[in-house]
Amino acid sequence: MAASDRFSVLAILPLLFLGQVFPQSIIQISPRNHRVSDEDSIYCDSWRFSVETNDAGFWSTIPKRCKNYVENYVTGDRYRSDSDFVAGDSITFARTVRMNGDGKDAWVFDIDETLLSNLPYYEAHGFGLEIFNESLFDEWVDLAEAPALPASLSLYKELQQLGFKIFLLTGRSEYQRNVTVENLLYSGFDNWERLFLRGPSDEHKPAIVYKSEKRSDLINEGYTIHGSSGDQWSDLMGFAVAHRSFKIPNPMYYIA
Amino acid sequence: MAASDRFSVLAILPLLFLGQVFPQSIIQISPRNHRVSDEDSIYCDSWRFSVETNDAGFWSTIPKRCKNYVENYVTGDRYRSDSDFVAGDSITFARTVRMNGDGKDAWVFDIDETLLSNLPYYEAHGFGLEIFNESLFDEWVDLAEAPALPASLSLYKELQQLGFKIFLLTGRSEYQRNVTVENLLYSGFDNWERLFLRGPSDEHKPAIVYKSEKRSDLINEGYTIHGSSGDQWSDLMGFAVAHRSFKIPNPMYYIA
Repeated sequence: MAASDRFSVLAILPLLFLGQVFPQSIIQISPRNHRVSDEDSIYCDSWRFSVETNDAGFWSTIPKRCKNYVENYVTGDRYRSDSDFVAGDSITFARTVRMNGDGKDAWVFDIDETLLSNLPYYEAHGFGLEIFNESLFDEWVDLAEAPALPASLSLYKELQQLGFKIFLLTGRSEYQRNVTVENLLYSGFDNWERLFLRGPSDEHKPAIVYKSEKRSDLINEGYTIHGSSGDQWSDLMGFAVAHRSFKIPNPMYYIA
Repeated sequence: MAASDRFSVLAILPLLFLGQVFPQSIIQISPRNHRVSDEDSIYCDSWRFSVETNDAGFWSTIPKRCKNYVENYVTGDRYRSDSDFVAGDSITFARTVRMNGDGKDAWVFDIDETLLSNLPYYEAHGFGLEIFNESLFDEWVDLAEAPALPASLSLYKELQQLGFKIFLLTGRSEYQRNVTVENLLYSGFDNWERLFLRGPSDEHKPAIVYKSEKRSDLINEGYTIHGSSGDQWSDLMGFAVAHRSFKIPNPMYYIA
């Protein structure tokens, strides 16, 4: 109880921090408190440094010895704190942007593990220890019940108040548009400018190519992409990149 | 004594890990064991995530509340472990590279906090808490006594054995060429292909521009830049980037 009380309080912190409250966005997942040896703690801290900086490159599952470490991290204080810090970096930058004011000031968000959290799904599938199963994940997506990441929801609302046009750029496919819109609205996201999903011609492109092409289209339409937020480096790198890119933590999976 | 013994052992780990020993490369600095509160530990972990992913953008000094955290980190096990992990990522990639075998297979290294460690200087200047003082730092550089980062020295040697041509690309100036060469040799680095320092026309360029221009020159000479290692994002980003870039930890300072 003490642990989950502490977690409830922490779940509110990012909202206070950015001055807003969206009760539906609180991720309802109980924090793990596994014992992790000093050796595993140092190893898994270094592994997380390596994946979050993209030094690791491609990886398919988390290291077995980091199972408890990753569970503690994503269900506990540190994931929330890291996410809040990135949201703080993002809004600090956004407030310094000289807006064009022509309705073409854009900010691009990824969706999964950036706006919406799939922790309830990954909790049931080893938090990244199991190899990704697309058909099982698509069944979860169809439920349209993914909660918001609180820090990202607060950032999203504040960017809109600052006058940014919000573009959503996801690796999900067009056939998932309706459930994706339903889930976004359920979790408190609204009034985005456009939602990009993979069309038939995008299906076999690496995420980094597909997402760069869509950003390039926006620039060709006259938009200035001031900022971009994503949990994968493939959301942020490639070409037609934003003036500033913000890497949101995700130690559970990697998308090329 | 127990602590410094543990540290000596740890100093050897990366060398065993990469299968080589360079006694002169051991950083002789005693590990701090400051008490850090849980609140500061979580805050400073998140701050370090933010600076190591480049989410923070420009920053001039470490947060005051993270002084003890940063001292513990850079003098202790975690900095060594993170550095070893990145060296492991780098060599794992290097072994998969299909070499041209034409003498044009290149790897680019930054120098300060990448090959050479200035911890003895930063130990005397608050580990990043003081604003950078160029004239004092240049006096330290003139001593040519910076030790090697053990993991980077092992990586450097193994890349040479694999047939990579090594290019050193530093923000130091041409007038520091002799002391820089002296320090590199003193710390065990040799047989590099070329050492780039800032010439008069580079003095006022941002590091990211100066370093991109030099990489571009190499590509125009026919080199393939397979990999690049640096402790600053300005070592790795911009244009003419390497096929894979490796971010080495540095929570003490930021160079744009």
